Amino acid sequence: MANANMNCWPLIVIGGSSERSQETMGAFQEFPQVEACRLYTKFSARPSSIETIPSIIEKAVRSSIYGRPGPCYVDIPADFVNLQVNVNSVKYVECCMPPPVSMAETSAVYMAASVIRNAKRPLLIIGKGAAYAHAEEALRKLVEQCKLPFLPTPMGKGVIPDNHQYCVSAARSRALQFADVIVLFGARLNWILHFGLPPRYQPDVKFIQVDICAEELGNNVKPAVTLLGDTNAVTKQLLEQFNKTPWQYPPESSWWQTLREKMKSNEAASKELASQKSLPMNYYTVFYHVQEQLPRDCFVVSEGANTMDIGRTVIQNYLPRHRLDAGTFGTMGIGLGFAIAAAIVAKDRNPGQRVICVEGDSAFGFSGMEVETICRYNLPIVLLVVNNNGIYQGFDADSWKEMLKFGDATAVAPPVCLLPNSHYEQVMTAFGGKGYFVQTPEELQKSLKQSLADTTKPSLLNIMIEPQATRKAQDFHWLTRSNM
Amino acid sequence: MANANMNCWPLIVIGGSSERSQETMGAFQEFPQVEACRLYTKFSARPSSIETIPSIIEKAVRSSIYGRPGPCYVDIPADFVNLQVNVNSVKYVECCMPPPVSMAETSAVYMAASVIRNAKRPLLIIGKGAAYAHAEEALRKLVEQCKLPFLPTPMGKGVIPDNHQYCVSAARSRALQFADVIVLFGARLNWILHFGLPPRYQPDVKFIQVDICAEELGNNVKPAVTLLGDTNAVTKQLLEQFNKTPWQYPPESSWWQTLREKMKSNEAASKELASQKSLPMNYYTVFYHVQEQLPRDCFVVSEGANTMDIGRTVIQNYLPRHRLDAGTFGTMGIGLGFAIAAAIVAKDRNPGQRVICVEGDSAFGFSGMEVETICRYNLPIVLLVVNNNGIYQGFDADSWKEMLKFGDATAVAPPVCLLPNSHYEQVMTAFGGKGYFVQTPEELQKSLKQSLADTTKPSLLNIMIEPQATRKAQDFHWLTRSNM
Amino acid sequence: MANANMNCWPLIVIGGSSERSQETMGAFQEFPQVEACRLYTKFSARPSSIETIPSIIEKAVRSSIYGRPGPCYVDIPADFVNLQVNVNSVKYVECCMPPPVSMAETSAVYMAASVIRNAKRPLLIIGKGAAYAHAEEALRKLVEQCKLPFLPTPMGKGVIPDNHQYCVSAARSRALQFADVIVLFGARLNWILHFGLPPRYQPDVKFIQVDICAEELGNNVKPAVTLLGDTNAVTKQLLEQFNKTPWQYPPESSWWQTLREKMKSNEAASKELASQKSLPMNYYTVFYHVQEQLPRDCFVVSEGANTMDIGRTVIQNYLPRHRLDAGTFGTMGIGLGFAIAAAIVAKDRNPGQRVICVEGDSAFGFSGMEVETICRYNLPIVLLVVNNNGIYQGFDADSWKEMLKFGDATAVAPPVCLLPNSHYEQVMTAFGGKGYFVQTPEELQKSLKQSLADTTKPSLLNIMIEPQATRKAQDFHWLTRSNM
Amino acid sequence: MANANMNCWPLIVIGGSSERSQETMGAFQEFPQVEACRLYTKFSARPSSIETIPSIIEKAVRSSIYGRPGPCYVDIPADFVNLQVNVNSVKYVECCMPPPVSMAETSAVYMAASVIRNAKRPLLIIGKGAAYAHAEEALRKLVEQCKLPFLPTPMGKGVIPDNHQYCVSAARSRALQFADVIVLFGARLNWILHFGLPPRYQPDVKFIQVDICAEELGNNVKPAVTLLGDTNAVTKQLLEQFNKTPWQYPPESSWWQTLREKMKSNEAASKELASQKSLPMNYYTVFYHVQEQLPRDCFVVSEGANTMDIGRTVIQNYLPRHRLDAGTFGTMGIGLGFAIAAAIVAKDRNPGQRVICVEGDSAFGFSGMEVETICRYNLPIVLLVVNNNGIYQGFDADSWKEMLKFGDATAVAPPVCLLPNSHYEQVMTAFGGKGYFVQTPEELQKSLKQSLADTTKPSLLNIMIEPQATRKAQDFHWLTRSNM
Repeated sequence: MANANMNCWPLIVIGGSSERSQETMGAFQEFPQVEACRLYTKFSARPSSIETIPSIIEKAVRSSIYGRPGPCYVDIPADFVNLQVNVNSVKYVECCMPPPVSMAETSAVYMAASVIRNAKRPLLIIGKGAAYAHAEEALRKLVEQCKLPFLPTPMGKGVIPDNHQYCVSAARSRALQFADVIVLFGARLNWILHFGLPPRYQPDVKFIQVDICAEELGNNVKPAVTLLGDTNAVTKQLLEQFNKTPWQYPPESSWWQTLREKMKSNEAASKELASQKSLPMNYYTVFYHVQEQLPRDCFVVSEGANTMDIGRTVIQNYLPRHRLDAGTFGTMGIGLGFAIAAAIVAKDRNPGQRVICVEGDSAFGFSGMEVETICRYNLPIVLLVVNNNGIYQGFDADSWKEMLKFGDATAVAPPVCLLPNSHYEQVMTAFGGKGYFVQTPEELQKSLKQSLADTTKPSLLNIMIEPQATRKAQDFHWLTRSNM
Repeated sequence: MANANMNCWPLIVIGGSSERSQETMGAFQEFPQVEACRLYTKFSARPSSIETIPSIIEKAVRSSIYGRPGPCYVDIPADFVNLQVNVNSVKYVECCMPPPVSMAETSAVYMAASVIRNAKRPLLIIGKGAAYAHAEEALRKLVEQCKLPFLPTPMGKGVIPDNHQYCVSAARSRALQFADVIVLFGARLNWILHFGLPPRYQPDVKFIQVDICAEELGNNVKPAVTLLGDTNAVTKQLLEQFNKTPWQYPPESSWWQTLREKMKSNEAASKELASQKSLPMNYYTVFYHVQEQLPRDCFVVSEGANTMDIGRTVIQNYLPRHRLDAGTFGTMGIGLGFAIAAAIVAKDRNPGQRVICVEGDSAFGFSGMEVETICRYNLPIVLLVVNNNGIYQGFDADSWKEMLKFGDATAVAPPVCLLPNSHYEQVMTAFGGKGYFVQTPEELQKSLKQSLADTTKPSLLNIMIEPQATRKAQDFHWLTRSNM
Repeated sequence: MANANMNCWPLIVIGGSSERSQETMGAFQEFPQVEACRLYTKFSARPSSIETIPSIIEKAVRSSIYGRPGPCYVDIPADFVNLQVNVNSVKYVECCMPPPVSMAETSAVYMAASVIRNAKRPLLIIGKGAAYAHAEEALRKLVEQCKLPFLPTPMGKGVIPDNHQYCVSAARSRALQFADVIVLFGARLNWILHFGLPPRYQPDVKFIQVDICAEELGNNVKPAVTLLGDTNAVTKQLLEQFNKTPWQYPPESSWWQTLREKMKSNEAASKELASQKSLPMNYYTVFYHVQEQLPRDCFVVSEGANTMDIGRTVIQNYLPRHRLDAGTFGTMGIGLGFAIAAAIVAKDRNPGQRVICVEGDSAFGFSGMEVETICRYNLPIVLLVVNNNGIYQGFDADSWKEMLKFGDATAVAPPVCLLPNSHYEQVMTAFGGKGYFVQTPEELQKSLKQSLADTTKPSLLNIMIEPQATRKAQDFHWLTRSNM
Repeated sequence: MANANMNCWPLIVIGGSSERSQETMGAFQEFPQVEACRLYTKFSARPSSIETIPSIIEKAVRSSIYGRPGPCYVDIPADFVNLQVNVNSVKYVECCMPPPVSMAETSAVYMAASVIRNAKRPLLIIGKGAAYAHAEEALRKLVEQCKLPFLPTPMGKGVIPDNHQYCVSAARSRALQFADVIVLFGARLNWILHFGLPPRYQPDVKFIQVDICAEELGNNVKPAVTLLGDTNAVTKQLLEQFNKTPWQYPPESSWWQTLREKMKSNEAASKELASQKSLPMNYYTVFYHVQEQLPRDCFVVSEGANTMDIGRTVIQNYLPRHRLDAGTFGTMGIGLGFAIAAAIVAKDRNPGQRVICVEGDSAFGFSGMEVETICRYNLPIVLLVVNNNGIYQGFDADSWKEMLKFGDATAVAPPVCLLPNSHYEQVMTAFGGKGYFVQTPEELQKSLKQSLADTTKPSLLNIMIEPQATRKAQDFHWLTRSNM
């Protein structure tokens, strides 16, 4: 129902409920589904009759994409399926118009520009909202014109390419910790950004918030300036200010120097890890080789714990809205569904565009059976299962056997450990896709090459890594607390 | 907590719940109150500790006034009252900034101006959202500069004075029915505006929606133009268009003539009714005399069925945000609470400013005991109870006695009839205020004059009207269906 | 719909909601009412069609009275009111049968009897559940046959007359604190019974719980025996045990002596307070005179803080299900509604039976306007407003005036203080009932006598008491904490 | 926490939520989980402190097993995990006692016995509630002593062995349709029993309901007698009646003859289907061979559409509480979780007892990845995937290929069809279990024999059947409507 040229995708769940006439009688799967969806949706409703289905769907679609986007639920009782109505009584409605766009107040834009101009250590943070708003062009112009360092959030990656010269992802903690002015483009100050609070930030850091959602502004911090409106429109407003009175942040400032040094040392540390020759491989080695071969325009889907967190720092995105991961909620099990959806979009819109799905072994366990769907529809997704035999950390096969000697596995095995050496690639071959059991960098290079070359079939690379592998050492202990 | 210069009033309910340590044990008034408030609020939460009370209150206040305003709930468990914490552990937060303001996209504003310029029968509708946005000055300029007819919604009354020469309230149905372009300023197309649908509107009427809430845009109709943003800011954007390329709607157009004629005939009909000498009085007589004496700057509070509906057409508002009625939801019983709140605001801000509370007798029954509060705090509210012995229609005392002869009152009396000749004024005198039993226009004039002259005491006028009195005849049957 | 001989009263709320076809459009009073009632009801539903109304009502009635009784909600959309259906398509259903009765397991009954026989300091507590179960006859037999001391809960009063020789209400705290075996008949161990925990009870007290609700058993304590079933049926099972092997608790035991002594001293203290001659009167004086004149078979309705709490200790109930008060939840404002319902039942079933409604002045303020309803239907309710000018404690008129001198009443008056000397009796005379302003014991005696003599009209006695009056001193500080 | 000798299993979900101090800040996985679980649980709560965890768990356990059993939710915030408290402040509580047992009123039992004695065509239905109540011994006595025909519901299978001479499952529809008296033992008149209404039942059939839940009694029908209480206790009460005045239903009655004839013809039809030699096999052939080898004491877990429905009619249960299927709600995906739970119970209680999990291929797809868990803990579960390449009906590989020729699989493949010839057995071998691809009866016999012989490893038999296979023809069209 979405307009082809709408550039945004409503998220509507259509659910089936039991026959209306059997309600309260103990019908099959009788449940108050509209009510049960209330907490999870922007709009949840059941059409009161077949005649009103079009209006309800229109409202669900519109609610899903207007304002801050979100999911909606429409409930269709079983008896609607066979019910007949007079065609003339149906209230047809057209699809809604593309979402209305709003801009920030001119004086606030002016003030924001002024705060940026006076910043000693400025930083832009590009969030998911910037991607939703299609702000990529405006943001790139702003960054390049003003020569400002920027950081993407996990879902903001690719709005400006990760390898852009002003991207300071490799010095993320440093950038957050010492910036004196931070401009948030569609990024919330939630746990992902450590709530905007010390010790991850300067106590007197000035936040400028650009957001489509008024109620988001001022969450957890008192912002210096708030710019309420569509992120793309507001970014253009800021650009206009810097066009009127051109300004750029000095590229040789000590802030840029600090950031560049930190990036260099972090990148060196990563590269050092990536080049380790010991087997099993570590995360960095794996992602380094993956990154080398990934097509520039591919979709990257990812979920897992370390796999998602470390993978994000190595695997680069060059296009907006081409990364899909477990998101703010960290919901495991959504990876394969995302990959299937992306593959169907790609098939339709840009045949040849690939979908790479980078899964932790535990994450894969949530919905790994979806490879049947992938194979059924011949979607040439490349699935990488980065397998450390566990969640965060597993055991190797020998330790596992040793441990089991002492008794009952259900009692002894730590709940975060999974079966060592599971052959996840066979879950793929069971349904006719290609499977690779990968233990060395060379095997990884080769099997990935073959997988990417084959556009007719899905493949799964089961990549064995050191069960105790972790991320590289962090400067401060509080950098490794998952929610700090 | 609201900033004095914020010009908006957060609506926060602070509720007390039972002691946390007794939860699930059957504590006094134990109930999941945060959950129970979910459907009614924008934000409902309990601070997790005393230390976090300031942040939660800040968030509640901010949520209440940012974006589309709405109520919030904060739950305080009983044990917090006596709990002690170290002052240093409390996380103090400053009050939030005034709500952020957003503007409509420039191109949409341009398009809206163009649609207006090309309108044959234009109409502006000024809603509650315009009042909340303090758009009075901008809107008055727009109306006067372009000479456009306008209609206020019940809660939009007073944004531009009701007696403004371009106000076409007296021809409301005609204006809605034949307009070809309607601009909604913070007014929803809900039941109050008949959903924007035929037969109350032309099937091809073009709606231009100005609203702060994206999800409101497109509700029930497909609008010609949507202007998402703060109503005041957007009105100014429109004004700018008409400043750049001046334009005005011809005051001698046939549309203006139609509207003026209809207004004249409707006003004549009302005046005719108002001047009827028969007793008991009818609604129009009562409101005509009330209107004559009301101070221009008073707050008008109102609730009831006919009392509120007819009263609204006769009693004029000259100032924005000075009318408080049962609103979209038609909740009866809120009148006296509103009046008390308004009187306290007036006392503080503008001593001498009066509050007039126009109640139907049934509506008064919902919370009439609040006169105790009014008297306790000596708030010089003037309460008018327009008493027809029932809801919509009652019986006179003789019919009532006749009816009761036939048996049991509980069985015989229609549920919409109240006790004839109730002396509501004695409910006021019981607490030391002044009471008047009013049966004639002369008594009404005199007692209202006395009440308005006395700034030290509240008074209540119990105004007896014809129990069968109704509103004046409407042109079409569907004009009297309450929700059409 | 309830069977006449069912002896129980379903509590069904039928609510009206907006037209189904306007749902999600912004209909008048559109709201998800079924969902909003979920937390408050045993069953909340909307019939899917007119045809299914009878089944839904049947299910609501049945759910309300089967198992532990509770309220149910049925939602009727506005469009049902005028909708027409073929009479033959309606699914008529008969009213449900009276609630099914269950009994306790024989072995548990045996064990319970044995624990009782071995008790050193036994106590029976008779709760609301015993009243609902119509267990009065069985319980009286059990008490008399075994000569056991008993206590009623507030809503259990009257199951056995309060003046029964084995009733130890006058030594409530003592009885609870030292009993070694307590048998609960349909009484929950919630805040009203101090959760069954020390210091209000012996740490090793043995509870025997008789309850219709399995999930209630074991709440807050580990009971010695649980008897799941209908309270009346289970009481008969216990009686059978004591018939088979007769046993009685020695009336001259030291436990009975302790209780009798404590009762005597408590009663003396109350009588002492009641006989105080100083004016204004205190609570005990008022209730003493009220108690003297109350008809034995009247309904007593009560709400308030001290008024309800102290009133309960002095005013006696002689019949089961003839006391209605604010209950476990302490909901203020339900008094007049209860009184009206009781008066209509009495009118129907036992003309001449009186309803006495004992209200605190604050409680009366919640729904005092219902006197209009009382007068409209000529229900000869006797309303007593025990007026201390506040909640828990008010001020006298002189202190009030003094206080107001210092400035703004809204700022100065404590929120628990109400307007001194409010003439609540005039709220009654305003609608044609009789009103009395009562300041002395003599006036109280006389006006109550007149009110009780007049069966044709309601009356209200506004009884002025000492604003600082409280209950009599308690032995331990924790006896006065309202929820301990 | 459940008592070892309690014989019942509480169902408690312990959920983790975000840190309390970060609530409303956008914490990781912040969500109102207690509220979200409300509709799904009997009790949902968060302990207010670490100290109250034991009481809350006790209440959750008790609520789950007392009265009608059901799931409960307990929420543990993340910060509890590392919080420290003084051991002495923790309120330890003992585990609750086994669920209290109640019995039916004696007079109702008497009346029920009398109705049974006078039945012309009696039928007992044994439901899940009978299994929960451990009523197996009492029910078998009742059936055998009175020679009454009985039917188990899906989850009531095994309370009396399926091969008992009085079990009339093979004539289910006939038995329901013509019985004049039906006694329900813990079985609800919901969709599984066609609501107790015509045409599946005689319009004047007399229902006798035995149930633990009062509110269940009278649902959808007006029962002749209701027996509220524990199903085991009530069955014993009935037995006592038939002991006092012995009675038996004549085994040569025409009702018994009708049932026996129908059973014979139905069994012949099934056997006929089972013996078909054509390949791929049909459902009956598969289940016939499975049934032949199943150990008498095994747990049977099952889910799917036809697989579960047809499997239930062929695979027999001989022990109560040894069948676990998708239940009333028909929730797919629970099979492997049930199997794992059963295997762990078996391991503990009765090593050597086997778990057989009979899955449809679609059902297996919901949680097939749980084979990793099965292999990790070496649980020797025997998984049968009855594979028809789809839901209800799939395609064979040739038709599938043909169909795909015409274009895009996502567009062409019906949503109920799955990938033909999926090698689900390889999902098992991927994790080290045994896998079999089974196409003939001989292969089935052999591989099942091997699987049952091996107690050290799990195995999975991927059993290919005719994609268009269905159940045998039914007498009436309404017998195949899934929810009629």
